[in-house]
Amino acid sequence: MVCRSAPMGAILYMLQDHDDKPAHECGVFGIVATDADVARLTFFGLYALQHRGQESAGIAVANGRTIRSHKAMGLVSQVFNEENLRPLTGHLAIGHTRYSTTGSSRLENAQPFVVESVLGPLAVGHNGNLTNAATLRQELLTRGVGLTGSSDSEVITQMLAGGEGRTWEEKFKVFMVRAQGAYCLTVLTRDALFAVRDPLGLHPMCLGRLGERGWVVASESCALGTIGASFEREIEPGEILMITTEGPRTIAHMPAHKPAECLFEYIYFARPDSLLHGKALHAVRVAQGRELAREAPAEADVVIPVPDSATPAAIGYAQASGLPYSEGLIKNRYIGRTFIQPDDQLRQVGIALKFNALTDNLAGKRVVMIDDSIVRGNTSGPIVRLLREAGASEVHVRVSSPPIRHPCFLGVDMATYPELIAHRLTIPQICEHLGADSLAYLSLEGLINASRHGDDTFCRGCFTGKYPVDIELVNKEIFELR
Amino acid sequence: MVCRSAPMGAILYMLQDHDDKPAHECGVFGIVATDADVARLTFFGLYALQHRGQESAGIAVANGRTIRSHKAMGLVSQVFNEENLRPLTGHLAIGHTRYSTTGSSRLENAQPFVVESVLGPLAVGHNGNLTNAATLRQELLTRGVGLTGSSDSEVITQMLAGGEGRTWEEKFKVFMVRAQGAYCLTVLTRDALFAVRDPLGLHPMCLGRLGERGWVVASESCALGTIGASFEREIEPGEILMITTEGPRTIAHMPAHKPAECLFEYIYFARPDSLLHGKALHAVRVAQGRELAREAPAEADVVIPVPDSATPAAIGYAQASGLPYSEGLIKNRYIGRTFIQPDDQLRQVGIALKFNALTDNLAGKRVVMIDDSIVRGNTSGPIVRLLREAGASEVHVRVSSPPIRHPCFLGVDMATYPELIAHRLTIPQICEHLGADSLAYLSLEGLINASRHGDDTFCRGCFTGKYPVDIELVNKEIFELR
Amino acid sequence: MVCRSAPMGAILYMLQDHDDKPAHECGVFGIVATDADVARLTFFGLYALQHRGQESAGIAVANGRTIRSHKAMGLVSQVFNEENLRPLTGHLAIGHTRYSTTGSSRLENAQPFVVESVLGPLAVGHNGNLTNAATLRQELLTRGVGLTGSSDSEVITQMLAGGEGRTWEEKFKVFMVRAQGAYCLTVLTRDALFAVRDPLGLHPMCLGRLGERGWVVASESCALGTIGASFEREIEPGEILMITTEGPRTIAHMPAHKPAECLFEYIYFARPDSLLHGKALHAVRVAQGRELAREAPAEADVVIPVPDSATPAAIGYAQASGLPYSEGLIKNRYIGRTFIQPDDQLRQVGIALKFNALTDNLAGKRVVMIDDSIVRGNTSGPIVRLLREAGASEVHVRVSSPPIRHPCFLGVDMATYPELIAHRLTIPQICEHLGADSLAYLSLEGLINASRHGDDTFCRGCFTGKYPVDIELVNKEIFELR
Amino acid sequence: MVCRSAPMGAILYMLQDHDDKPAHECGVFGIVATDADVARLTFFGLYALQHRGQESAGIAVANGRTIRSHKAMGLVSQVFNEENLRPLTGHLAIGHTRYSTTGSSRLENAQPFVVESVLGPLAVGHNGNLTNAATLRQELLTRGVGLTGSSDSEVITQMLAGGEGRTWEEKFKVFMVRAQGAYCLTVLTRDALFAVRDPLGLHPMCLGRLGERGWVVASESCALGTIGASFEREIEPGEILMITTEGPRTIAHMPAHKPAECLFEYIYFARPDSLLHGKALHAVRVAQGRELAREAPAEADVVIPVPDSATPAAIGYAQASGLPYSEGLIKNRYIGRTFIQPDDQLRQVGIALKFNALTDNLAGKRVVMIDDSIVRGNTSGPIVRLLREAGASEVHVRVSSPPIRHPCFLGVDMATYPELIAHRLTIPQICEHLGADSLAYLSLEGLINASRHGDDTFCRGCFTGKYPVDIELVNKEIFELR
Repeated sequence: MVCRSAPMGAILYMLQDHDDKPAHECGVFGIVATDADVARLTFFGLYALQHRGQESAGIAVANGRTIRSHKAMGLVSQVFNEENLRPLTGHLAIGHTRYSTTGSSRLENAQPFVVESVLGPLAVGHNGNLTNAATLRQELLTRGVGLTGSSDSEVITQMLAGGEGRTWEEKFKVFMVRAQGAYCLTVLTRDALFAVRDPLGLHPMCLGRLGERGWVVASESCALGTIGASFEREIEPGEILMITTEGPRTIAHMPAHKPAECLFEYIYFARPDSLLHGKALHAVRVAQGRELAREAPAEADVVIPVPDSATPAAIGYAQASGLPYSEGLIKNRYIGRTFIQPDDQLRQVGIALKFNALTDNLAGKRVVMIDDSIVRGNTSGPIVRLLREAGASEVHVRVSSPPIRHPCFLGVDMATYPELIAHRLTIPQICEHLGADSLAYLSLEGLINASRHGDDTFCRGCFTGKYPVDIELVNKEIFELR
Repeated sequence: MVCRSAPMGAILYMLQDHDDKPAHECGVFGIVATDADVARLTFFGLYALQHRGQESAGIAVANGRTIRSHKAMGLVSQVFNEENLRPLTGHLAIGHTRYSTTGSSRLENAQPFVVESVLGPLAVGHNGNLTNAATLRQELLTRGVGLTGSSDSEVITQMLAGGEGRTWEEKFKVFMVRAQGAYCLTVLTRDALFAVRDPLGLHPMCLGRLGERGWVVASESCALGTIGASFEREIEPGEILMITTEGPRTIAHMPAHKPAECLFEYIYFARPDSLLHGKALHAVRVAQGRELAREAPAEADVVIPVPDSATPAAIGYAQASGLPYSEGLIKNRYIGRTFIQPDDQLRQVGIALKFNALTDNLAGKRVVMIDDSIVRGNTSGPIVRLLREAGASEVHVRVSSPPIRHPCFLGVDMATYPELIAHRLTIPQICEHLGADSLAYLSLEGLINASRHGDDTFCRGCFTGKYPVDIELVNKEIFELR
Repeated sequence: MVCRSAPMGAILYMLQDHDDKPAHECGVFGIVATDADVARLTFFGLYALQHRGQESAGIAVANGRTIRSHKAMGLVSQVFNEENLRPLTGHLAIGHTRYSTTGSSRLENAQPFVVESVLGPLAVGHNGNLTNAATLRQELLTRGVGLTGSSDSEVITQMLAGGEGRTWEEKFKVFMVRAQGAYCLTVLTRDALFAVRDPLGLHPMCLGRLGERGWVVASESCALGTIGASFEREIEPGEILMITTEGPRTIAHMPAHKPAECLFEYIYFARPDSLLHGKALHAVRVAQGRELAREAPAEADVVIPVPDSATPAAIGYAQASGLPYSEGLIKNRYIGRTFIQPDDQLRQVGIALKFNALTDNLAGKRVVMIDDSIVRGNTSGPIVRLLREAGASEVHVRVSSPPIRHPCFLGVDMATYPELIAHRLTIPQICEHLGADSLAYLSLEGLINASRHGDDTFCRGCFTGKYPVDIELVNKEIFELR
Repeated sequence: MVCRSAPMGAILYMLQDHDDKPAHECGVFGIVATDADVARLTFFGLYALQHRGQESAGIAVANGRTIRSHKAMGLVSQVFNEENLRPLTGHLAIGHTRYSTTGSSRLENAQPFVVESVLGPLAVGHNGNLTNAATLRQELLTRGVGLTGSSDSEVITQMLAGGEGRTWEEKFKVFMVRAQGAYCLTVLTRDALFAVRDPLGLHPMCLGRLGERGWVVASESCALGTIGASFEREIEPGEILMITTEGPRTIAHMPAHKPAECLFEYIYFARPDSLLHGKALHAVRVAQGRELAREAPAEADVVIPVPDSATPAAIGYAQASGLPYSEGLIKNRYIGRTFIQPDDQLRQVGIALKFNALTDNLAGKRVVMIDDSIVRGNTSGPIVRLLREAGASEVHVRVSSPPIRHPCFLGVDMATYPELIAHRLTIPQICEHLGADSLAYLSLEGLINASRHGDDTFCRGCFTGKYPVDIELVNKEIFELR
């Protein structure tokens, strides 16, 4: 089947902000170490987690008595300097990098949240999304707590600060009874670091060892290597791990009867050099590409990725198909946020600020273009057109994940129902929309097999609409309507 | 031969600032267009040339009567916003992105330089380095011109503003008689844009057409595509091209008897999607990798690049050698300038902020690691060690350019004699220094053949020490001493 | 009696930050108006209240449904621009300028505080100090509220957000039952503005009318004139005034059996053009100077003020004494915060950045130098010396308020016991310390008579140590110890 | 005669930017001192000269070999911090504070200008205005110098850098032969400080001694006192003073046959604590007020100044008239530049951000309002109205300088012919325009007598239209037309 070319009105202007990808939802980090500059180590840990959130960054440090913190809008490297790092002395620290959707992008939402509570000071960093946040929020208001922002993370912080329980251990257990949804927390008290992962284990968190000097927790293992820590194990779904200078101790273990890890950590989120269940995600994505080649072969001359995230899958596809791997698109390395908009003439000529095509590698060739996912479908069409203009005789789009037909209610900023192209259109319709010669997605089975063979502990919500938890109706309606 | 492992004192800490690469020396852009927002088009053109200089950016616009400009320190996207772009109205513009070595990194060196002259206003953007700058500078001082900065570009500006000649055409010709070395200029007068390339053609500059609306010149062709202009031709070595609303007109052509293009544009500088002599540099670099595979094969299991610049060469090496291509190193995409330094403990554990190794792709494998060039040799050793720690059983380093044994005196911030590892050590010594199992460089003949078959019009100064022009002794001594 | 000259170690370096004055404690403003740009009017109102606090400024606006706000560190004119003022649309607004002691000078303490509560959104601006803040704070923590900062104002905000009461009216009454000390509040809900003044009436707040369009409340009447509003009346001690688009309505009146206005508003705090009890403070201070002349005459040739605050008192002293008024000290109008410190040589020569003496007006003359208050006594000595160096034959210091022998626990940043010179030294000792020829203070009776004849409703705490409320022991101890 | 009230449309909105005063034209400072931190001393010297220019500030320091400098937009206290002051080491320094009219307010006009010349580095600070700048500028362009800005000061710098003469001494003499108009220069070479004052002595400059350690020059003597230097003497009109570590030496003396000091330094510009011809300007202004009382008495109850600049004259008027001195207007001390504009309603109610009236001191009284000068006449009317609204029964305006009927072409930003109210209207018409009950100006003879008895060496250009030098026609025409 040959799809027709993309409609002329297609928006060809692409900046990083408009990546057609689901969005990360924060990175967390925590450390307990004696004889070490814990704030500096946290800085470098956050540096390695920068891909999980670029809006704001913060570090809080405890010294046995008080908690001091610094946070601001911007990249980790912009937020911190020697001057503001210097006062952050102690032997326990947590750090946070935040991603945020437009609108709630304000300093008061930057994390960690630091509050004084009846048990002393408390600092909280959170990655995830509570599905019953509205209920919990209303409970806090009814209990007489004034809330300053609109984030789940403030709700969590006030629940811990004021929830039932005479000790932190009790408070964390009570919290886990009440909270539903996705949460990886690093929490600092005066003298302990708590790492908490939701019972479903939706997002990753792992434990590392800093030689004899201490212990580290992080959203991804890549942050361990960066500071010279060794990977110890993953924090278990439902685990409350408490780390003091005495070392780590599991104080509760409340897993769901079936975990439900987010498949998008395997497809796109986590850095390719991070490990999940003992395998580097680069290798997982190469395997996804291999599986895709088996499921959806193409008669073609060359395999190219949409850089950078689809590169491993394209390498896998090339290996399994026997087709040569090449680069067909060059990404502008210095692309950054700009508020300068192209004018109409620029839009018409179809400027491509983000990618340029490599004519020499494409001209006269039948091209397999590998992408890892398509969400709204608004950038793939222009890329297909770019390849054709560079002389590609055919463009076969292969996607190393299934069609995304449902939003995520568990902490990933995916899109709403009306925005999701695979919710609105059939695969042939999408192919036509993109102007591709053929289009195929990796099957859900293929994805799961490539990611972790035969495993049944993944959340498939965005592909199937069946979520591992009840979603509060209010949220769902909002997503359907807007 | 097996080299021993890298000395323990090796600097394992790597940030973008310390890339072991020669440094770019500015990007220039110019446009004449009616019925277009020339400042906005220049903005997007500079955006595409950002890789040639990240220190400062500037735009000057002429409207037939006056010249207005804005420039500041920072990336193009940081320097400009709608507010400061708005007053820049007219139908001619030039833009500049500047790279600078530390020390002269000050706003007064940002370009374009704008001065009032006896023939009216003048704005100058410059990429290159004059080899007789000291002499010309002294002449200006003697003539009674007070000079504010220390840059060649101010010398050029004052030479044009006050040099002999009743017309701009005459002034440009007089300038070309006097200036030696490398210079690509875009110069704006009230009502004309001049594009000037030195007789040797050391650095690239090309002409593009913006449909019926106007004409564009740029350091690299990638900037043409970005704004919807089509590639027309290269500015010839020694050419003075004048563009007005009437179109382009060559007003002089003063080439050297033999041009001497900078080979490093082919190896590393120019963006892979830019064209030189009709070929995309990506394809040129793939050919360099193929040639390297022929000259220096390796018994190995996998070929990996040092990302991102060596990726095309690695693809070529893999193709020619029949070895599988893979990724072995992941680059932190968000790495940026940070002033936070690692402490001693971090240095000892050998943190690698810039790259992480992919154990799954390396463990137990004999690895060919492709780099495009080695200047000081201070980052290759740590990378080799990183690969070994990830389990590589052998690491064979292959470099897609010859050993750099001499500094550049023609505008590239390469290094000084004592800094160049290939000036100090033999290839086996370098191999031992890197801790590699073998090391080979591409031959100069191989490089030239792959870049443009059999051509004899390249500058080979950094490889052979034979420069296409006389270098003022004073410069050379400085480079040898420091 | 002739005092000896000031000790050589006297600190002669004087910058605005080191003014030897008690510190202001914030300005509040509120407005309800239809058919008006309430945020803009609030901006100009705060502009007139800038003298009450220069650390941060903020505005919150309600439109019947939601509350939007903007606040930042800096002067009112630095915090606001057209861009951040534009979204603040509505018909009710409050504004705040904050003074703060070093240390707690952080954005999270900037006001208004805006929170979501069970009754909807709430914005609070506060001027004053609760004397039972520690108790109330502990109650909130026990009730399970996590507190982010250390300010009274957050305590007040959370008490209102979560305190007992089904309606705002009830909540305000409950608050007034529990709170002790000084508080002038402007509080915004979705559709009402509340102005609350503590039962003692320690700090001023007044009501103004904006023609037919609306109503205004402000710390001082000078803010009314600035925006074209007419003075209506003072908010009564213990009054809760609610203003909606229907107009103002007193919903409670809970005065103390005897009010206790802060005398320092009459001496120094309030702007001379503000009215208290119907009299402009300029006239009040002229009367204080007249009374001082009667109580403590001096044989002298000229009367000069320490500018600017003592100018009215000096005018009064001159009038009553028949001595000519003149200026003897010129204040640097452009003095601002600088972080550049003088070196030792500069300290030795006794630079006087803040004041220069006018030799022509002083040489050979017996000078009466009028100041309105002496707190620590560290700037009066250098001024006396400056006058002598300018040729004054005698310097007689007259102070238009009594000796300050006790700290303030009710919201004025005065000083601690050990810092107060009149707590440590007798008047003759102070005179010797200052190097003056004579020294006299206005008596407490004289001050009260001049301020409001025969009135008995002033707080005299800082002069007598007898406060109108119980001070929590913890505070008092802190002040005594530090 | 009783003038009618001001027209209702009068703009009552007054911000500092709209002061109806002539504008200052920069302050210069220079120092040569061994064993001292010359940059820090220059900082404090500029601090004392801040009233002469608030747009930008800069310091250049020489150490015998090179000159280093720092300058930026803003107040002295904003431009400098310990970090940027630290590298400015040496034993000679100059500093500059700049005032500028809107439009040319750009960093490239900030001073000192620092250039490399054939005789070595050169730094120039300038206060004044050349009357033949256009001619000199054209000569430089013709000589082949490209000029970056539009300021006189760049012209001066390039004239010194490239002008005739084998030595600096010769170059300065040649410069003085060519330059016409007003210029006080402080110029730094590698190892000498030059202080140059134009032959007419239009603006002040004086020499001070820093004990045994060195020498200081400054626009006003107030800067000497601030850093502990003693006043030595004024730099003579036409003098070129060279200061090295050997001390000061007059290398030329080229006075005009009759000097022509700017009378506005006596009326308004110089700080009241600065000395001119041995008298503090405060005393001079008191004498002007006394003279005004003799020339133009008024039947009234009270004398008030328009603060702050008219305070000394009001004190003098009160002394000579026997009327009581009081304050009637309070100036907002914190007024600063704001870009927030009042809306129409605010304009109509006549907000007065800058001044508030003191009703108690004015109600029912016949008021003499003293101002030191009226330029455009746009703020006096609103002030008169403010006084009337506060209850003044009569307002008699007295001005301690003559009517300004002509622009200044010698460096003072006064106004253009059409803007000057006294150029357009007669005194009775102005009185009516202001809505005053009577209006009188000090006579020119009275002004001169009070300023320096019987002296005939003043420039009277703005009062009489007779300038001490020829004004280039081009300037004059511009002023007349615009």
